[in-house]
Amino acid sequence: MEYNYSKAVPQGGVDTVGEILKVAASPNVISFAGGLPAPELFPTSQLQQATDRVYQTSAESALQYSNSNGFRRLREILAQRMARRGVSCDADNIAITTGSQQSIDLISKMFINRGDTILVEKPTYMSALDVFNTYGANIVGVEMDDEGLRMDALEQALKNHPEAKFLYTVPTFQNPTGRTLPVDRRQRMVELARQYDIVIIEDDPYGQLRFAGDPVPAVKSFDSDGRVFYLSTFSKTLTPGLRTGWVVADPAFIKHFTVIKQSADLHTDNVAQQVIAEFLADFNIDEHIAKIRQVYRQREQLMIEQIQKHFPTGVKYTNPDGGLFIWVEIPGNINTQDLFDQCIKNNVAFVPGEPFYPGEPESGTFRLNFSNMSEEKIKDGIQRLGKAITEFTN
Amino acid sequence: MEYNYSKAVPQGGVDTVGEILKVAASPNVISFAGGLPAPELFPTSQLQQATDRVYQTSAESALQYSNSNGFRRLREILAQRMARRGVSCDADNIAITTGSQQSIDLISKMFINRGDTILVEKPTYMSALDVFNTYGANIVGVEMDDEGLRMDALEQALKNHPEAKFLYTVPTFQNPTGRTLPVDRRQRMVELARQYDIVIIEDDPYGQLRFAGDPVPAVKSFDSDGRVFYLSTFSKTLTPGLRTGWVVADPAFIKHFTVIKQSADLHTDNVAQQVIAEFLADFNIDEHIAKIRQVYRQREQLMIEQIQKHFPTGVKYTNPDGGLFIWVEIPGNINTQDLFDQCIKNNVAFVPGEPFYPGEPESGTFRLNFSNMSEEKIKDGIQRLGKAITEFTN
Repeated sequence: MEYNYSKAVPQGGVDTVGEILKVAASPNVISFAGGLPAPELFPTSQLQQATDRVYQTSAESALQYSNSNGFRRLREILAQRMARRGVSCDADNIAITTGSQQSIDLISKMFINRGDTILVEKPTYMSALDVFNTYGANIVGVEMDDEGLRMDALEQALKNHPEAKFLYTVPTFQNPTGRTLPVDRRQRMVELARQYDIVIIEDDPYGQLRFAGDPVPAVKSFDSDGRVFYLSTFSKTLTPGLRTGWVVADPAFIKHFTVIKQSADLHTDNVAQQVIAEFLADFNIDEHIAKIRQVYRQREQLMIEQIQKHFPTGVKYTNPDGGLFIWVEIPGNINTQDLFDQCIKNNVAFVPGEPFYPGEPESGTFRLNFSNMSEEKIKDGIQRLGKAITEFTN
Repeated sequence: MEYNYSKAVPQGGVDTVGEILKVAASPNVISFAGGLPAPELFPTSQLQQATDRVYQTSAESALQYSNSNGFRRLREILAQRMARRGVSCDADNIAITTGSQQSIDLISKMFINRGDTILVEKPTYMSALDVFNTYGANIVGVEMDDEGLRMDALEQALKNHPEAKFLYTVPTFQNPTGRTLPVDRRQRMVELARQYDIVIIEDDPYGQLRFAGDPVPAVKSFDSDGRVFYLSTFSKTLTPGLRTGWVVADPAFIKHFTVIKQSADLHTDNVAQQVIAEFLADFNIDEHIAKIRQVYRQREQLMIEQIQKHFPTGVKYTNPDGGLFIWVEIPGNINTQDLFDQCIKNNVAFVPGEPFYPGEPESGTFRLNFSNMSEEKIKDGIQRLGKAITEFTN
């Protein structure tokens, strides 16, 4: 039968990115397409020990229904850890979610009426765009430069769109560009948000994965009136399989958020929450993150080195201080979907830039992931990619 | 600051049920308010063994990102098990969710534009009403009798509301009434759905918890054209802590559902999915469910016995063949919120009927849970409750 879907369901139902990832998953292909952490670095044995401890000490509570705002002990530990990002808060400022994707989804549901305007970086995290589209947002992209979102462009967008509800931003090691917003722009961003009365959704999945340069405090650290909602996750620092993220906001907001979270899935996997809390109490996650950073740094530096060696001159690329991604811009009017097809023939894959753009994409752009690939494959893959680009642009 | 919320956020933000559960959770109170499984029956040791096996054999895959439609092995096992409910299907008919609450939420998102009409049983699962309200549904309640939804009332509602998008039904051991729809009505329900071109959301969390009477096949078993979406969960048969449910529908629907699931939280906790698949492969869940059924049967029978002994004559109550709930109706114009306050003074709690009704509630109704309470406390609690009702109605 034909279903009479709501406007939330995308017309056509073509999942471009899904198709790209499917092709890229072929065993012969060296894929820089995903955004996956390195699985060989998962602290498997420590997580298993933490799990055993939960089963030994609190199985009946871990396996039972729980609070929609999350496991209290985990919220307490997270509140303390937020000091590392310059944010002072306590457990009442925190709600646990089934990963940052859910945080984005629920906050979008709480703010977007169909037709409402929101602002995003251009380009931005493609699966956030998917969410905003399901709620019928009018998505306005704001220009970036090498240091992230341009504050003059943000102010202009706010002037043009006084009706805007929020700005969604990934200010640190941005997905897809790897760019990081400097401190003065973070302060200015909060000022502008106050002046034009919007809220900011600060998505920070990569902030702790800095392998070069000096730490920059979260945008949330400059917030004085509850205007910034800070999102993070254990997906990149511990494991995405346990699907646990969190939101930091004013307690008044957390209360409403919890009502919406309850209607969405009652609460996040309680065993996962207790296991992560146990892991954080028994083991040193900062040591673990330091290990990840070191490996990612090597992979990133190697990828940059190989890009310099094999990509034709004139190709631009970011050289991030952390995170998972490098962003490539090929000069001229290049269709990267066609380039992708060419690369697949050479058994190498990336994500074309198009899906990261709200509205009109910039041609010739694509995203490379370095976290999920061995050094050997980075060498081989970038060489193949360079060859394909050279062929394609000649 | 004041947030400029969307229409999805409930006005006022008073969480009546949350307040009730909070009061009911006081240590002196015997609470029949929740809908929790008996935690002492969780197969803790078996789940721990299954978890160990996952960590030993497939930790890297379990801890990594996964498919939005769910872990394939789990979907295969579930497809086979659906035969027990009279439904023939394979893995492509199944999507895994973070519990049935999420299944309700995502399907609602896929069908309800603000102002769209949907049909529900009157009374029905209150947290489904919460979901429908966040999407701005016009909720029409359809009358029930002792055998569940009345088919004449359903047909009338469909005539009155040709615009209705779907019927949400809990046909087996319904929440809150415990009633079960007989086979002939199930067939008729599917016929009516076809005739008036709506889809049916069949929520079946309790179907396997039958402790008396003959099994009745799922409404989905009478579906020939993909009109019924069947939802179930491990929350009542295994554990709610691992938050895993599933949807059974036509592959064409599952494909769209997966896109919406992806934007909601990427995928369900992958460790939980693999642990449950391992549990189902290594242990006998049907033996485990048989144990639960036996305990719940004793508790239900004892509760009925005590109700007969202590409640004033004229009070009506259901005597279900399975599930978790008994529904009580006190004759006369009784405000059960006031009765609740009186009961709390006597240290006993239930959920007043009001939040289970879309629109105007029927007075004098409330829900009792028997699964989560020792026999001793059932005796004490129902005695206290009988005393409070007697005092209140005199």
